[in-house]
Amino acid sequence: MNSAEKLNDTLERHHPAAHACLSQRGRRLFFPMGIPAQAGQAKEASINATIGQLTDGAGHAMAPAAICQHLEGITPEEATLYAPQGGNKALRAAWKERIQQSEAAPTSSPFCTVGLTHGLKLVADLFVDEDTEVLLPEPGWGNYDLIFGTSCGGNIIRYPVFDGHHFRQDAMRLALSKIKTKGVLVLNFPGNPTGYTPSADELRPWLEAIRESPKPIVVVCDDAYTGFVYEEDRITQSPFHDLAGCNPEKILPVKIDGATKELVFFGARVGFVTFGATGPAADALELKMKGAARASVSSAPAISQSIVLSALQNPALDAQIDKIRNVILHRYEALKTALDTANIAYFPFNSGFFTLIPVQCDPEELRLKLLKDGIGVVSFARFNAIRIAYSSARAEDLPLLVETLSKHISVDKDPALH
Amino acid sequence: MNSAEKLNDTLERHHPAAHACLSQRGRRLFFPMGIPAQAGQAKEASINATIGQLTDGAGHAMAPAAICQHLEGITPEEATLYAPQGGNKALRAAWKERIQQSEAAPTSSPFCTVGLTHGLKLVADLFVDEDTEVLLPEPGWGNYDLIFGTSCGGNIIRYPVFDGHHFRQDAMRLALSKIKTKGVLVLNFPGNPTGYTPSADELRPWLEAIRESPKPIVVVCDDAYTGFVYEEDRITQSPFHDLAGCNPEKILPVKIDGATKELVFFGARVGFVTFGATGPAADALELKMKGAARASVSSAPAISQSIVLSALQNPALDAQIDKIRNVILHRYEALKTALDTANIAYFPFNSGFFTLIPVQCDPEELRLKLLKDGIGVVSFARFNAIRIAYSSARAEDLPLLVETLSKHISVDKDPALH
Repeated sequence: MNSAEKLNDTLERHHPAAHACLSQRGRRLFFPMGIPAQAGQAKEASINATIGQLTDGAGHAMAPAAICQHLEGITPEEATLYAPQGGNKALRAAWKERIQQSEAAPTSSPFCTVGLTHGLKLVADLFVDEDTEVLLPEPGWGNYDLIFGTSCGGNIIRYPVFDGHHFRQDAMRLALSKIKTKGVLVLNFPGNPTGYTPSADELRPWLEAIRESPKPIVVVCDDAYTGFVYEEDRITQSPFHDLAGCNPEKILPVKIDGATKELVFFGARVGFVTFGATGPAADALELKMKGAARASVSSAPAISQSIVLSALQNPALDAQIDKIRNVILHRYEALKTALDTANIAYFPFNSGFFTLIPVQCDPEELRLKLLKDGIGVVSFARFNAIRIAYSSARAEDLPLLVETLSKHISVDKDPALH
Repeated sequence: MNSAEKLNDTLERHHPAAHACLSQRGRRLFFPMGIPAQAGQAKEASINATIGQLTDGAGHAMAPAAICQHLEGITPEEATLYAPQGGNKALRAAWKERIQQSEAAPTSSPFCTVGLTHGLKLVADLFVDEDTEVLLPEPGWGNYDLIFGTSCGGNIIRYPVFDGHHFRQDAMRLALSKIKTKGVLVLNFPGNPTGYTPSADELRPWLEAIRESPKPIVVVCDDAYTGFVYEEDRITQSPFHDLAGCNPEKILPVKIDGATKELVFFGARVGFVTFGATGPAADALELKMKGAARASVSSAPAISQSIVLSALQNPALDAQIDKIRNVILHRYEALKTALDTANIAYFPFNSGFFTLIPVQCDPEELRLKLLKDGIGVVSFARFNAIRIAYSSARAEDLPLLVETLSKHISVDKDPALH
């Protein structure tokens, strides 16, 4: 049986926090015994007339040559037929192995999504409504507001990541105390737009506060920038691994990651949602996710999944990624040096793709001035800052960028911010 | 300006029906001047440090060889970098040209989605909530219920496509009269699971009723199976083209289609949403769609879009698709002959991928019996029928399928149903 009521009952028994945090939509969601489910059962049939895709009747694709001619080393079946709901099984297994490489926290099977945004949205579908406090990092990614607030109607509460130039260790306990009945907490390290990753010591009070949360919460670890950490003393594992064994009466940890940044494959749209849950609770969450995904995109792109799977199986991949990461590390160092030389204040950064520069002037005006000088940056009105994405600029261009910037801004001479 | 209020005001002035039909979420949606918008403005900058993707600083991709080695005839930039929000511009233009080939109804620019389901979901996000009647065909695709009902909370009303063995010409007027304040109507020809397309004469009373709808409605034409029509006297154009010039006080027509079935590229997840609207109304709808898409998947897969664009530009494509269509036509004829020979009653079918067989027994039991005999079909409890997808079975296997079926069912001898 797979009605919404059954799934809700299973969660209530096996994961009270997940059950308490369900949104109205989340309570309704289930995965109907519809066409994908029935087609799944008919895979071994000698005549399989279940699914509305064109095959030759023996499981082979019929895609036109105008499409297949672009494939190299993956078959038309792998690229042009539907992927299963929830994702290619071998890919899901390979990703699970990857995220458990160094620490084997108990988790569900990673659920394949259309990029990380889709993972955030499916989790929001399950857990965010008008009765949900959503705790977002400030500074934080603007799209969180659109997903959790505008689209899903949650009550946004911002918690500060920094206290001036320091990581704000007491921020989490205060933020969690503001939840009225149930909450969703987003953690994002390395952060966008901050480029910040805390040390284990800095993070510890946050983890303690989370474990002692007075209300049930879903903790979403947005691990988009996994692996891009440039300083020795920073955490290299997602907080998800610390939380995955948490009390299911209180906390449901969720890991959201994917190939977008981690494998440098932005155009694929391959993301994953993994729950810190196992057994019947994980099975029930999987079916609710399948329902939410079926109602939003149906299956995720097969071609992207097949290429990502092949890359994960390729023994050369890690060295290739390391080489790319070293290029970015070099840019990181060049930018830091240029900012220090120009005596420009910045929020602390040590990882990811960005640095965030607080400005005294109107950041949008500054952005437009820089644009006239041929330099593109992103402005954030809410936290009076501009963001430099050194992920998309050459190391040798960064001194000119900083020099131009320093001409336009009121230089903040406060050395404490460095 | 691009606040939700501005967009709502624009729609109220330029497309009152679209404005009247907005859901609560649809009213809130807008496309923030966030990172994608600011990055769009910085495209010509000599140093573009706006966007969080890895490039060499001159716009070139940095994806690892383990990924790029699978590409043939498309560049790493086309496949591995982000596609723009709303889709690749050249692809959107090429698709617009394609859908306007035979009839140039005034439309918006096709908005690229992650397959057709995503198009349906974005439209549901804009227009469906608890105060919306959603009129769905019966028999109809089960996923409509999940999208419009379970996920978006609309009030589902089913309208009958058939009256016994005939297309039900008076169904539409009756269905439209049930809308309380605003509605979404889904039309689906060729139909899933019916495999039915009406003649122009059959459809006329439906179009008349729609034009005279007592309440404002969004008419969603789900044109997934465009082109797969096997009988001469059937409509070959979507009803969208008849409705695109409709009174904007009353009706917003929407066309949903894509490469999935039409170009036989199921694994791509490339769909399109096109509105029967132009000018400021189309612009406002585009921005609301961009907001909804940004909050659900952000950009759609670039690799799929680039391959679909290349295929559309390939002069060999049409002949390749024709050849595939002829294989399916042959299966269609073989199935019809086998059913007639076995004297098995079926709902009328003439197009698409399916036929629907009404049964006297429990269709789920029948499905499981057939599965034991090595034959996979889909059962529909609600309309007591099984669906045969001849899209995925060989013509030479269909007689055995029908023979096995006829052993299991109580053969309905009513010749009127043939």
